[in-house]
Parts: sequence; C-alpha cells; structure tokens
Amino acid sequence: MNRQITLASRPAGYPKESDFNLVEVPVPAPEDGEVLVKTIYLSVDPYMRGRINASKSYAANVEIDEVMIGSVIAQIVASKHPNFQVGDVVNAGIGWQEYGVAAGDGLRKIDPTIAPISTGAGILGMPGLTAYFGLLEIGKLQERETVFVSGAAGAVGSVVGQIAKIKGCRVVGSAGTDEKVAYIVDELGFDDAFNYKEVTDYHEELQKLLPDGIDVYFDNVGGAITDVVFPNLRIKGRVVICGQISQYNLEKPETGPRFLWNMITKRARIEGFLVSEFADRHAGALVEMSEWLRQGKLKYHETIEEGGIESAPAAFISMLKGGNIGKQLVKIADID
Amino acid sequence: MNRQITLASRPAGYPKESDFNLVEVPVPAPEDGEVLVKTIYLSVDPYMRGRINASKSYAANVEIDEVMIGSVIAQIVASKHPNFQVGDVVNAGIGWQEYGVAAGDGLRKIDPTIAPISTGAGILGMPGLTAYFGLLEIGKLQERETVFVSGAAGAVGSVVGQIAKIKGCRVVGSAGTDEKVAYIVDELGFDDAFNYKEVTDYHEELQKLLPDGIDVYFDNVGGAITDVVFPNLRIKGRVVICGQISQYNLEKPETGPRFLWNMITKRARIEGFLVSEFADRHAGALVEMSEWLRQGKLKYHETIEEGGIESAPAAFISMLKGGNIGKQLVKIADID
Repeated sequence: MNRQITLASRPAGYPKESDFNLVEVPVPAPEDGEVLVKTIYLSVDPYMRGRINASKSYAANVEIDEVMIGSVIAQIVASKHPNFQVGDVVNAGIGWQEYGVAAGDGLRKIDPTIAPISTGAGILGMPGLTAYFGLLEIGKLQERETVFVSGAAGAVGSVVGQIAKIKGCRVVGSAGTDEKVAYIVDELGFDDAFNYKEVTDYHEELQKLLPDGIDVYFDNVGGAITDVVFPNLRIKGRVVICGQISQYNLEKPETGPRFLWNMITKRARIEGFLVSEFADRHAGALVEMSEWLRQGKLKYHETIEEGGIESAPAAFISMLKGGNIGKQLVKIADID
Repeated sequence: MNRQITLASRPAGYPKESDFNLVEVPVPAPEDGEVLVKTIYLSVDPYMRGRINASKSYAANVEIDEVMIGSVIAQIVASKHPNFQVGDVVNAGIGWQEYGVAAGDGLRKIDPTIAPISTGAGILGMPGLTAYFGLLEIGKLQERETVFVSGAAGAVGSVVGQIAKIKGCRVVGSAGTDEKVAYIVDELGFDDAFNYKEVTDYHEELQKLLPDGIDVYFDNVGGAITDVVFPNLRIKGRVVICGQISQYNLEKPETGPRFLWNMITKRARIEGFLVSEFADRHAGALVEMSEWLRQGKLKYHETIEEGGIESAPAAFISMLKGGNIGKQLVKIADID
C-alpha cells in the first residue's frame, strides 16, 4: 500500500495537523515513459503554504482531498523509461506520499557520489538554486557589495549568505534564535547576524551592522524586518523578494509603513521571482554549486524529521514556525 | 534689483505662503564663463516638496533663507561665455528669482522655433524627459501592453499616457477632477480614466478598465491608488516609481497594506529613478519628442500663474494640491 498526506481543510493562520489526512491507496503502476519511485526524503518548503490557500498563488492550488504538492528525493523501483534504471535516485514532484508515478522526461537524476542524496532537495536542489539565481540574477550582486538576508538560517538564506561571501561581499543575516545566529556566523561565515526576536530596533541594528547601507537585500521573511531595509538601501540598491514567510500565516493581513518614496531617492529596485524562470540554467548552476560544496566554500545543515510520512504535517508546521536550521526534510524510507 | 523667493521655514504638511519670503537683492554680475539671465517662466514641480524638508531627499535640501531651488526658462541679458549671446533662451537652474547667474557650460539652449519656449520646462524639458525615460527605460514598455498612470493629468503623467499610445498600448489614467479626466481622454487620447476622488473602490475600477491586468504602472502619486495596483499586475509587470505626491504633505506618515507577496506571484519589478540618470541621452530624446510634437502625436497643456515672482509660492502650493492641468508655470517677465 501507498500512504499519502492529503489536504483536509484550508488553514486559517498557521496550519494544524488536522488540516491534513493520512490515506492509504494502492501503489500505482507506471505506464510507458513513466517510472515508479519510492520516496526517501520528502521536502517541506515555505512556498507550500501559499498553495493551500483558497486564493490562487503563482500556480494552481491544492484542492481539498488532493495529495499535498511537493518534490521528494526518491529511488526508482520500476522503470518504463529508457533513461532510468531501478535503483536510480531522482528528484520527483510526486507530492507527499510514499510511492508515486512520474514521467521520466524532465526527471532530474541525483548523483549520490557528489553529496548525500538529501542535498538534492536542499543546497543542490530548489532552495540552493533559488539562492543562486535570486542573488546573482535578480539581485545582480557585485563583488564587495553589502548584503542583508532575512531568514538567514533557512534552506535558501543560508546559501545566499555563503554565495555572497564567495563573491567577496559583507553579509549580515537575521534569524529567529541565538543558535541560528551562532550557526550562520560561526559555521557559515556570515560577517554578522542578529536574532530578530531579541533585537527591538531593527533600523538601529542595521545601521550598526551595515553602516554604509545595503546593496542587496534578499528577503525571505517580509514584515517589520523588511520595512526598515528601504531607508537603509544604498543608491541603486536591489531588493530580491524570494519569500514573505512572516505574512503567510496571518489570519488578518498586516499593514506597514509606506516606503515607495525610498525607491526614488535611492533609485532602487524591488523584484520578485520564481526559480522556475531559470529552469534552462539549473544544470549549469548545480555544477558550480557542487564544485563550491566540494571545495568547502558551501556548507549546509539539514533538520530531518524521522517520523515517516505521518510526520510530514508536523514537520511542515514546525518549519513554518522556524523550527528548522537549514533544510527541513522528512525521512520516509531507507535507500536500497 | 532682483527679487527672490527664499525658504522661511520648513513646512509641516502642506506648505503655506508664510513658509516663503520675498527678498530683494542686487542683480548679480557674471564672471568669465558665466551668463546673467532674466527669468521668463519659473517652473514649480512636485520634487521641490522633498527638498524643503529637514531630512535629506535625493539631493541637498534648501536651507532656511536660501533661494528656493528650481529651474527656469530664461533669456540671456549678459554673457561672458562664447556659446551664448544676449537674447538666447535657456533652461537654467537658478531657482526662484527674477535674475540669476549661471555657468555657461552645461546650460541647455531652448530653440524657440520648435515650440513655445515654455515647453522647455514641460513637455520638452524635465517632466517630458521623466515620462520618456521612466516609461521606456525603467518601465521597458513594449508595444500593445497595458499601462496605468496615476497623476495622469500632470506634467509627467500626461506625457506618459501619450507615449504609451504612440507605442500602441492600452492606457488608463487616474486624476483628481472630472475636467482632468475629460482632458486626458478627449484631448490626449487615453483609452479611459477615472476621477479618484469620486471612485470609491479603486480595485474594482481597475478590474473594470484593465480586466487583463497591468503591464506597466507609472506612479506619480502613491498611497491608496498604488496599493490596488499590485494585485492587478500582470506576470512580469513593472511599477515605475516616479513620484509619491500623495505622501509628501502628510503630517504623519501613512501605513498601508503589505503587498510584496504579489511581487513573487507576479514575478514583478518595482523601480524608482531620477531623470538625471539619463542625462547623456536627454538631447536625443528631445529630438524624438519634438518630432512627435510636430506630428501632433504629443499634445500639452500649461497652467500659468501670471502674478510674477511673488505668486510662485501660491502656484507651488496649488500644484501640490492638484490645481494644475499639465505643467504648472509662473510667468515672471516677457521675453525681449
């Protein structure tokens, strides 16, 4: 049998475990051109919160009683596609389930000799690519600029800061625990960081840590911490909007200070993006990222929930509340 | 004697006439390389409001008792620069005064055979150039896109809409009186427009007038009308921040709905700019704009205060409150 997590109800505010159901269905069989995969690691990511709302996000929403969307690191257990053999490890968008059928065309193989396969959902997967293209292509980061990253200990933010260091920049991050702050400074090499739950005056903190202002702000969080960035931007500053996790679980939308006047005085730019826009360049970026990883220039951390498919909702909720350092995964099965 | 308007006090909220002084000083004499000019038309522009605050805008502020900054259309009455003759008409940044000395280098000559010289402060001057570079270079407007312009009957907005029509776009504008709405639709050829003081639901209005969404929003105004643009942006929409006149005269900063999440779902961009960034391309743009004017593809309107230098503060305040259609000028003297 195949166990799946489906959407039971649309959450108001933070999702609850009761917003999800665990259901059992028969394991499906692949048709020609398809493969059957067994999930090894399931990825839970902030973007999923937007996809379980009633209002459309950037892509179709999950319907009630549908399997939760998402991508997994999986092993092929049956193949009707010439490019894939039983035992191959792939990144497949089958959602939150133990087994799934996927079209072989477009399926990304994971090379287990480069790094542990779990990285295919993290630093060498969507979050790593999001950091790479967001910072370099949307943020147009230049050597020796100053960078501020919110959500800096998360799967994306932690990579953003490290790539900025590779590019010779001064990097400051914000995160929600002292442990995270220590991790990104001591382990990842951020120049400085602060715990936004402890600091009360973000504006003053940014002026202290980045006294010459911010060239590139990589925003995973939104809300009050983003508000203070605008007056601290440098001329021609860029604000990369990657996520707004502080806003996803509000029962009532927030208001905030108007800041667009700063865009004129700073001749600044704000731009949102999706990593899928750069799909034709993902492979090349992964080569570069793998090399940085091999050289020790990139490091990563994973927070792995070991409770199987039934623990995916709890892991998702924990991640939305900042319970993770680095990439949040759910271990579903051992690799064969 | 030379009469000048100086800054008497920093306004709280809308400026008052008492925030300015009228003073008399001797007419200055030009040194080598300089010219003495007599002001014909004085230009009052929204950007000046930001320059009389205590906090720095994008350039140095006017100090108390300093002559108000600004550019004028002026005639040369004495020249110590080889490129300028007595009688030549120029655009000079001498501020609010009847006479002034300016360096000849970099001074822009106005050709009175192309159009009335007043246009050198309007459609063939800074406002026209702001519209041109903001829409085409920052907004990257493409043929047949949809455009929304706030402050559409002003010196900049009225040109934005007409350039968008030249480029084959659908253009909707907002303005603050029925007369302005009629002017931009009937005279300037906007596809539609609405009076933001009459319409109560801007979101609904935009959905009605631009049902397929907005490719480029050219923002002169900010505030509540800008708030509703973000959910109405099309994928890859661009928001050009040119001005935020609704915010300049607030005694207390406003808050508004947070909207950055839309930047991700729409993969959209917001960018502020100053026309001075494109200084090396102004001359070429003026050639193109002059040709459009000659062909009747561009039209303009001027609101001219005839009361001389002493009426400049009143004209400035009136313009900030939306009293003008098209470019607001103050007539200072007749041309010789």
